Amino acid sequence: MQTVAKPQERQTAYSLLARHALFAGIDDQTVEMFAQAGQLQEHTKGNILFLQDDEAEWFYVVVSGWVKLFRETMDGHEAVIDILTYGQSFGETAILENGQHSFGAMVVEKSTLLRLPAAMLKRSVTENNRMALAMLHTLSDHRRRQTREIESLTLQNASQRIGCFLLRLCHIDMPQPIELKLPYDKSLIAARLGMKSETFSRALNKLRDETNIKVEGSNVIIPNLDTMSRFACSACSNEFPCEDTHHSH
Amino acid sequence: MQTVAKPQERQTAYSLLARHALFAGIDDQTVEMFAQAGQLQEHTKGNILFLQDDEAEWFYVVVSGWVKLFRETMDGHEAVIDILTYGQSFGETAILENGQHSFGAMVVEKSTLLRLPAAMLKRSVTENNRMALAMLHTLSDHRRRQTREIESLTLQNASQRIGCFLLRLCHIDMPQPIELKLPYDKSLIAARLGMKSETFSRALNKLRDETNIKVEGSNVIIPNLDTMSRFACSACSNEFPCEDTHHSH
Repeated sequence: MQTVAKPQERQTAYSLLARHALFAGIDDQTVEMFAQAGQLQEHTKGNILFLQDDEAEWFYVVVSGWVKLFRETMDGHEAVIDILTYGQSFGETAILENGQHSFGAMVVEKSTLLRLPAAMLKRSVTENNRMALAMLHTLSDHRRRQTREIESLTLQNASQRIGCFLLRLCHIDMPQPIELKLPYDKSLIAARLGMKSETFSRALNKLRDETNIKVEGSNVIIPNLDTMSRFACSACSNEFPCEDTHHSH
Repeated sequence: MQTVAKPQERQTAYSLLARHALFAGIDDQTVEMFAQAGQLQEHTKGNILFLQDDEAEWFYVVVSGWVKLFRETMDGHEAVIDILTYGQSFGETAILENGQHSFGAMVVEKSTLLRLPAAMLKRSVTENNRMALAMLHTLSDHRRRQTREIESLTLQNASQRIGCFLLRLCHIDMPQPIELKLPYDKSLIAARLGMKSETFSRALNKLRDETNIKVEGSNVIIPNLDTMSRFACSACSNEFPCEDTHHSH
């Protein structure tokens, strides 16, 4: 972990926070206070930020890269709860859960993170009703994402879930065929989608047959967005493009 | 739907709300205001309370019975998002989502519900920071339950998910063998657990072999709670008894 030099830091922190849902409609003075207290940090792949049940000293906003949230089961397996990227925050809900993190967080690709003091957030939410309302809205967004996640795990088959994952990396106005780079390891994508590696491979082959995508290493080519969304979105209550993709954050 | 006579109604509503997380730490006057505005209603199985995208005029607390929350997919299938019972509330988050319900709600067993005006909640949360904080805590509880749900769908096999469902109907201090009645139809339990009926039957047979439970119609006998929790909870990050069961509401 490496902390970035001070001067540019506050400006980056400020512009990131000012656009974050947690600070929507919040006065400049408060945003500035958080930006001052924030620390920009560069992390390499594999860094653990905190573990489940740790006291929450900080919460985080992703500036770039990818962070995995996870929980460990009694028999030592890992459930990947979420994988977050640019503009998404995590750890802030600990202030509502006795100050402890209910999951662990690990950097899965080289990342820059802004960390902010949890105590400052707790004080602001308690004293400032606008902060409380803004936090209510972010939790409500999160709830909607999780509901979609449960729906997808319940109704989509493995190939459709992979298709859904790929669609979430696409913008509707990208020129076709669309060329993508997978954001992180295939084994992690499998875990994120709740599949064993073998299931993932089989399902990816089926998706290839159904939608004519090409996959070479981490490069993916999607020839036709309509074909893909017809295949993946039929078993879902959302239409492509989803309201709850990363881009809307 | 039948509305219960007024005199007993306000008292029932008041005592229900006073114990509800949404009103934890809220002044008596506010709780009384909601109790006054509340309406107790008896519903028969199959009643639709609202549909996805409906304008949210009311939110609900379950007094008795079971209510299913669901979403419909593009190809006409239904995802069962949750099934709620005594003391649990639903529909209140619509005030954070442009006043529209993001799911439908249907009564699945004869139920008594308390319905309350959404506009009153919205006003209270906006004007009263304690209400905003209480609502933050209920959303945070909800988030924890959903996270557990995603974990379970990701890591537990079908038999373990059924075992988990049954354990959630047990108290740790019940005399063993434990005799249970399934709270609603097996087909709905299957949908709730994200399984097709055939998968459910096969998985139930396997659970029977592994844990010696007996199932006759809607009656279940669990001879040994330890055996059951060793089988079901090994693939989960919670130990039995779970913190997030219905009983804690």
